[in-house]
Amino acid sequence: MTQKVVKRLFCDILCNMIIGVDLGGTKILTALADSKGHIISTARIDTLASLGQNQVINNILRSINTVCKQAKVPLSRVSRVGIGAPGPILGRAIIVSPPNLPGWLNVNIKSMLQKKLKKQIYIENDANAAALGELLFGAGKRFRNLVYMTISTGIGGGIIIKGKVYTGALGTAGEIGHMVIEPKGPKCGCGNRGCLEALAAGPAIARMAGTKNALEAEIAAKKGNKKAQKAINTAAKYIGIGIANINNILNPDIFVIGGGVSNMGSLLLDPVKVWARKYSMEASRKSLIIVPAKLKNNAGVMGAIAICMKGLS
Amino acid sequence: MTQKVVKRLFCDILCNMIIGVDLGGTKILTALADSKGHIISTARIDTLASLGQNQVINNILRSINTVCKQAKVPLSRVSRVGIGAPGPILGRAIIVSPPNLPGWLNVNIKSMLQKKLKKQIYIENDANAAALGELLFGAGKRFRNLVYMTISTGIGGGIIIKGKVYTGALGTAGEIGHMVIEPKGPKCGCGNRGCLEALAAGPAIARMAGTKNALEAEIAAKKGNKKAQKAINTAAKYIGIGIANINNILNPDIFVIGGGVSNMGSLLLDPVKVWARKYSMEASRKSLIIVPAKLKNNAGVMGAIAICMKGLS
Repeated sequence: MTQKVVKRLFCDILCNMIIGVDLGGTKILTALADSKGHIISTARIDTLASLGQNQVINNILRSINTVCKQAKVPLSRVSRVGIGAPGPILGRAIIVSPPNLPGWLNVNIKSMLQKKLKKQIYIENDANAAALGELLFGAGKRFRNLVYMTISTGIGGGIIIKGKVYTGALGTAGEIGHMVIEPKGPKCGCGNRGCLEALAAGPAIARMAGTKNALEAEIAAKKGNKKAQKAINTAAKYIGIGIANINNILNPDIFVIGGGVSNMGSLLLDPVKVWARKYSMEASRKSLIIVPAKLKNNAGVMGAIAICMKGLS
Repeated sequence: MTQKVVKRLFCDILCNMIIGVDLGGTKILTALADSKGHIISTARIDTLASLGQNQVINNILRSINTVCKQAKVPLSRVSRVGIGAPGPILGRAIIVSPPNLPGWLNVNIKSMLQKKLKKQIYIENDANAAALGELLFGAGKRFRNLVYMTISTGIGGGIIIKGKVYTGALGTAGEIGHMVIEPKGPKCGCGNRGCLEALAAGPAIARMAGTKNALEAEIAAKKGNKKAQKAINTAAKYIGIGIANINNILNPDIFVIGGGVSNMGSLLLDPVKVWARKYSMEASRKSLIIVPAKLKNNAGVMGAIAICMKGLS
């Protein structure tokens, strides 16, 4: 073989590493993976969002160097970098104005990173990325139409249709937390009343239970506290209605539930399943599958790796 | 040219007619169209659903013969027959158990018609077919992601994603009328409470207005009757919330509103637009387009023609 052919073969084998970045409001989680998505090394650093976007971009670059150094892999062997970022993403390039990255307004993070890194850059909303992560590596294997719901301080979602992330006209699809279920219900951060998020996310559970947060409500409920149990059941009812509504509209193959509040496990998910079945139409009830997410704390970073591998249409 | 070649050329040009059938509970509307969807002749006969499925199948065949005879086109020139049928359709072949075709249970209408007609048969839920009809021939031209909502005695829907009918895991997607918006609201025919259909379809408007039907409520409202005006505005609010919920979840390019109740025009649609904008998130509000259906009474039959032409995935 000529030198050229050898070089190309080597590159095919060796220059095919992936880096996934989970860009959060407080932490940046970064992972180096091989072309199949197996993680080789990881890093976790502070976002320091308040220092401005240039500092955040530098921190992303620093974390990318860190995961490479740790694994003794030169950056030249990385061909693709995926970023899961908060809030809506316009045109798979521009971070609009996420509440947890204050001061960011229409930042074209794709072109900024492309200039610095000279790699293929993929950007996706973090919940959409997590949805694809669950499809490729987690609870959604074997399926093609998946709805991912993340329940924590807010409620977000990602929709996979025919194996690909569905983002809609402006890239804002999947905002399932702002489905209005109780028009006279409690006020939501978005300005409306009775959104699923205002009825059933962590703060709503804590408010109804009279506890500091959802974790305290969980502990109290497990100890037999009636008020905390009722709070969790009420949240479960609304989450179940939200799932049933989506099931009636989209009839996906599977619902995958992630996020901090979902760590309550069957205490929350068992009643969610009962209500979701009750409120689904008979025809779509038959196909209703609700499972907990498998990737847990790695959902963001595995999602960022997943978007480099496939599934963006 | 040989005789064979001439015959094949003739067949390419001549044997490419389409028949669309809108199978309703009371009427069967049938149309013969050319390969571009231009209607050549139509027929309208009674379904006579109470006489059983064989009689209905015979009536469909009779109406197909009628539209051909009227246009002096032999049936041999028709290559494809599309049927828009009520209720969920399994595997694009089987009519499950529509409420307005009593006694029908898992009828494989596709194979029954294929045996009799020896043509390519396409079956789709009527609302899905109407959605595709609006995309190809009506208010949704130039768009790729469309949600069609039909408001009459019930509320149904059809979803087009990337130019194709989206039917979900079991083929039951698009049941937007059974989205629960008011869990303590009025009882719905499906058994649950507070479905969009129970809050805003024709019978709900008549109930709130104290009139015999939605048309009487419309006439009263236009004459200044406050109770009727309030009834229509309340229905409009719920329809707006339903559209906003779907906009937040799916962020389609366009919403097309059809069905008898939508003939109220701006009396209903103007407040619908206001509420849908209010309840949409800021990001998805920007792309919100709501328009009345263009195909009106022909929606069913044009949809049945559309499903023969493209858009089934």
